[in-house]
Amino acid sequence: MKQQIDALMQQNGAAALWISGAGQHNPAMVYFTGIAHLTGADLFVIPGRTPILCHGPMERDEAAKSGFQLISYADYDLNALIKETNGDLGLASALRYKQILEGINLTKGKVLLYGLRDVGPFLAVIQQLQKLLPELELTGDVNDAILLEARATKDEDEMDRIRAMGQLTTRVVGNTLDLLTSHKVQGDMLVKSDGSPLTIGDVKTQINLWLTAYGAENPEDTIFAIGRDAGVPHSSGTPSDPIRLGRTIVYDIFPCEQGGGYFYDFTRTWSLGYATDEVHQIHDQVLNTYNQLASELRVGINPAILQQRTCELLEAYGHETVRTNPRVSSGYVHSLGHGVGLDVHEKPWFSRPKDDSNILQPGSVFTLEPGLYYPEKGYGVRLEDTYFVSRDGKFAKFADFPMDLVVPMKAG
Amino acid sequence: MKQQIDALMQQNGAAALWISGAGQHNPAMVYFTGIAHLTGADLFVIPGRTPILCHGPMERDEAAKSGFQLISYADYDLNALIKETNGDLGLASALRYKQILEGINLTKGKVLLYGLRDVGPFLAVIQQLQKLLPELELTGDVNDAILLEARATKDEDEMDRIRAMGQLTTRVVGNTLDLLTSHKVQGDMLVKSDGSPLTIGDVKTQINLWLTAYGAENPEDTIFAIGRDAGVPHSSGTPSDPIRLGRTIVYDIFPCEQGGGYFYDFTRTWSLGYATDEVHQIHDQVLNTYNQLASELRVGINPAILQQRTCELLEAYGHETVRTNPRVSSGYVHSLGHGVGLDVHEKPWFSRPKDDSNILQPGSVFTLEPGLYYPEKGYGVRLEDTYFVSRDGKFAKFADFPMDLVVPMKAG
Repeated sequence: MKQQIDALMQQNGAAALWISGAGQHNPAMVYFTGIAHLTGADLFVIPGRTPILCHGPMERDEAAKSGFQLISYADYDLNALIKETNGDLGLASALRYKQILEGINLTKGKVLLYGLRDVGPFLAVIQQLQKLLPELELTGDVNDAILLEARATKDEDEMDRIRAMGQLTTRVVGNTLDLLTSHKVQGDMLVKSDGSPLTIGDVKTQINLWLTAYGAENPEDTIFAIGRDAGVPHSSGTPSDPIRLGRTIVYDIFPCEQGGGYFYDFTRTWSLGYATDEVHQIHDQVLNTYNQLASELRVGINPAILQQRTCELLEAYGHETVRTNPRVSSGYVHSLGHGVGLDVHEKPWFSRPKDDSNILQPGSVFTLEPGLYYPEKGYGVRLEDTYFVSRDGKFAKFADFPMDLVVPMKAG
Repeated sequence: MKQQIDALMQQNGAAALWISGAGQHNPAMVYFTGIAHLTGADLFVIPGRTPILCHGPMERDEAAKSGFQLISYADYDLNALIKETNGDLGLASALRYKQILEGINLTKGKVLLYGLRDVGPFLAVIQQLQKLLPELELTGDVNDAILLEARATKDEDEMDRIRAMGQLTTRVVGNTLDLLTSHKVQGDMLVKSDGSPLTIGDVKTQINLWLTAYGAENPEDTIFAIGRDAGVPHSSGTPSDPIRLGRTIVYDIFPCEQGGGYFYDFTRTWSLGYATDEVHQIHDQVLNTYNQLASELRVGINPAILQQRTCELLEAYGHETVRTNPRVSSGYVHSLGHGVGLDVHEKPWFSRPKDDSNILQPGSVFTLEPGLYYPEKGYGVRLEDTYFVSRDGKFAKFADFPMDLVVPMKAG
């Protein structure tokens, strides 16, 4: 949680966090400023001090909402520095940062960089700045020991926001089910009132409209994939594909609050009208594995252990897994889950066995999402909910939704 | 244009471009791969070779659509490297990149990094990699001399996509006008059928629904700001504000293709029912300036000259400008325009006088957007269209829309 940051910085010998980039769709910045209409900003977090936010002059009102100490870039004349350096924009930008850092008395110690930005130009400026301020150590928190560690346990407000996203998400999924079952069947295909096939693209457009109407967005798209596509976990689906009976549809939806806030992550697998015996069996195996793992959740467990258990259970059903073959593309081919927050994938990680800080604990928010994939046989199955650990150490989903495979269709 | 890249790389002594990050909402990657469902990838562009795309194993189908040479991360065992390095994730990641770079025979010369990523962890890995491969020079193209220079001139396909976004954008703006005029006036406020005030938030929700329905999104929000907010160029508006007659509304809409493709940028200023004499006068001055500047567009001009001209014209009307006072917050407080493409702000830049490559030329796409801002007087005015330069050197807007200030309302 946020109040751990000073302590985590001290433990890791960090003098400051330097968070850079926009105030939207930029988790590290949004964690501090909230979703803010800042197109480019720099935030310095220093233990015991009010955070310092550098902003463009036209964004002074947005910046002021943060309550932080403000510095306007307009107080530093970049064009004059560009002239002084004979047009060396990298050096001029580094000199401006040097002035800013000297102004806030941050010229020594380890400074850890965060934030979504175009990496190259920023890297070039940081390389120049490093030479100008040799007592600074400008680097990154590659082990997620500070900011991602703090973000890995959510406070009550964050829990409420993720819960609201869970309710919104399952509402959209319920609407989607209604949309599908309201269509007529012709042959093995769903058709619209004009007789043309309902397509994956049609369904995705409607999903986007519901998300927008409810105040969310899905910057990384929604997976609504049928048949072979459902067998490739990150295939998002082919827009022109018609929707046919008796084929698995993997529906994985991971929207965030508008402007780039908290995410939710949720998957169901459906087969319209009927499912083949083989798919029924696979779905049962995934569901059993999901339920078994949900019953084994414990405070203090490293989720890598849960990933191991998932591999054991699915191997016992005769499937190949990532444990036996890291390059596997049929069977169980991914991780059991991941942390969820301002990033759709964040700490705790399910695939890093060695890290003791990487455990399930009160405040953790994470997905459980076992799956089995057989693209060459034309199907895949995944079931996923987002879980949290309460203050008193209880595990629960944020939102309920039935796990049924077969979606009964009305008459054609 | 894309075909310039090899030549630009040779001119700038670059052995390779290394583009990193997602295949969505990541302009540098999308420029090469198109909008692709890749959550994390690395692309290497080397003159005379097919680009090389490194991708996660579950994203092999998406990666294959690029037609590039593919490398799966699954072929490099990161967990084994983490063990070898006793849990040093930064070093392990750097060792994996070393293996990949050696595998494609890229171990010498200047490699320029691009792409939106969390800068810190990547910086730490690059610092390690730099030590492992000392004959590489890993840095950034801070002067926008290669990729941004290529992107600054659009080909016919890019022009068509931006034109389509212009049509979509002006359609949404037309819908917005219809929405406003369809509401009743009560006192000085627009009200809904239940008698409650129509708010900025209501209008923005509807704008988002139209954008979604037409296949676009607005990841950086829309500015729909009234009164004092309209006087602060980057204030996006206060959602709870009612919409009142006789106050300026700055409506600045800059959507992109769904998934993070080409942008459009457009602004009108409206005053519902009537406008004060003062606002009429200011609007006329902005419109005259817009028309004068549009008439002065020439192939080969550095847009910084146009910015100077704008300051001259607006100063002649008695306004303070950024030229006389870089910290100005009333008067003319920003740039006349900017390039538009996969970024909403890109080359050509309007505020960098020294750069000879930074000119208007066939293929350029850019905005013209003079404005005048008086937040303390409760108003602001901006008018903006996105322009292009045709192959034969003609300047034109992509989409027409009236410039009228006053929106006539029906009876209350």
